[in-house]
Amino acid sequence: MKVGVIGLGLIGGSMAIDLKRRGFAEEVLGVESEPVNAAAAEKIGIVDRVVALEDCVSESDVIVLAVPVGTAVRMLPRILDMVSDKVVIDVCSTKEHLARSVKYHPQRKQYVATHPMAGTEYSGPWAAMPGLFDGHACIICDSEESSPKAVRTVEELYSTLNMRVIYMNSSNHDVHTAYVSHISHVTSFALALTVLDKEKDEKHIFDLASGGFSSTVRLAKSSPDMWTPILSQNRENVLHVMDTYIEKMNAFRDAVADGDEDRIRALIEDANRIRRIIR
Amino acid sequence: MKVGVIGLGLIGGSMAIDLKRRGFAEEVLGVESEPVNAAAAEKIGIVDRVVALEDCVSESDVIVLAVPVGTAVRMLPRILDMVSDKVVIDVCSTKEHLARSVKYHPQRKQYVATHPMAGTEYSGPWAAMPGLFDGHACIICDSEESSPKAVRTVEELYSTLNMRVIYMNSSNHDVHTAYVSHISHVTSFALALTVLDKEKDEKHIFDLASGGFSSTVRLAKSSPDMWTPILSQNRENVLHVMDTYIEKMNAFRDAVADGDEDRIRALIEDANRIRRIIR
Repeated sequence: MKVGVIGLGLIGGSMAIDLKRRGFAEEVLGVESEPVNAAAAEKIGIVDRVVALEDCVSESDVIVLAVPVGTAVRMLPRILDMVSDKVVIDVCSTKEHLARSVKYHPQRKQYVATHPMAGTEYSGPWAAMPGLFDGHACIICDSEESSPKAVRTVEELYSTLNMRVIYMNSSNHDVHTAYVSHISHVTSFALALTVLDKEKDEKHIFDLASGGFSSTVRLAKSSPDMWTPILSQNRENVLHVMDTYIEKMNAFRDAVADGDEDRIRALIEDANRIRRIIR
Repeated sequence: MKVGVIGLGLIGGSMAIDLKRRGFAEEVLGVESEPVNAAAAEKIGIVDRVVALEDCVSESDVIVLAVPVGTAVRMLPRILDMVSDKVVIDVCSTKEHLARSVKYHPQRKQYVATHPMAGTEYSGPWAAMPGLFDGHACIICDSEESSPKAVRTVEELYSTLNMRVIYMNSSNHDVHTAYVSHISHVTSFALALTVLDKEKDEKHIFDLASGGFSSTVRLAKSSPDMWTPILSQNRENVLHVMDTYIEKMNAFRDAVADGDEDRIRALIEDANRIRRIIR
């Protein structure tokens, strides 16, 4: 099997590495619009060859679209225009806009919408790493819109990456990821902005940052290229969760302002219910 | 040297383990008001003996007060009443209230205010572990109020724990820790409350939680016994930081509501400055 990866960043690059290493792909072709990243990806050995988009699509059996979702919405219909029996997948974090962009495309059945839920706060081919996806969940959306054969190929691909596959329609996907993934990026960005605003002496932040602070602020290092279109495309769901979040924050604020230890304790105990769910 | 640890939870227990293991203490005595925890601490071997408070104070050369800060404020003056040439330290996360509680105590010089900035989201003697403090910062507050000999003993103690010591007055301590530590616990509690409120299906949270979500919500597992008095005692500073945080969150919310990608991107890029500081 020949796999073509369009966009050699953290996700596309890490996929390329493991799909080749674990024998799913005999050859991996890459497409990368940023010349520096393209040269790096070839030099690091993430892909066998960096080629033009058209060559990648015509030579590959499976095409992985791993670009930020704003770009993906524009590219996906164009790529489907070029294929007949190849399998095309995307790996984006929002799904409804993408689904809508190809809903009536004559080759819709060759496309499988996927979201491998793994990553780090780093980006670019330098951030790509083997084993990134192992043990994490991957959502396949609207699988009834894809040909069963295409879905089977994609299930095999994610099984090679050691991912647990979950099925969901793209609208539900966008609701749930707003709760469980998108909001935690926003809280982390806001935390970084707050600390950078209040603590002018950066040395103090560095000196005093404990493991707890580092882990809550980690996602604030995430790429604007990736996160701007996610927050903008998943606007309704993200807004809804942000409003709930601001409410909870204000409840906390008021309990602290009133110096009401019983209310502070009750809020913390309520939050502690997460212990039963996460790890 | 004999060390007495009052409160055998995560911090007190972890200190007891390493101070004994690394030879700073020949014997470690423990005081623990919760009978189950006391029995566990003795059984696990965190301390050599669990004894009554009075015996611990009279037998030990260095006394570590490792109880939640609300309790510490009540106990510290009583403990200082019992000592003449022993060294007493606390390990609490807020410092001004404690400093005030013993400001005019005749034995003030025997007390050294310290805050080892390390921990996990778990609590109790079961959470205690060797190496917890290695490489982290420890703040010593108002050291000019303590006898130089007592400070030297405490510096040696923290050097045994491989901590970098930073000096600060207790008022500055409470300002800086509000920025760098307390606020990140509140953002994490609010995140847990939001997700638990919006996502009624706990299986979805479990299935979809990525590494990013887990790391931002991790601190929401923290103990209410520890965090209620911290947020209440550091009320002014915490409120001030929370208000700034809510402002930043609202700026983000409005940019998303307006679908203004330029503003979303500018906020993310601004938050990305944290990359230069953390790791």
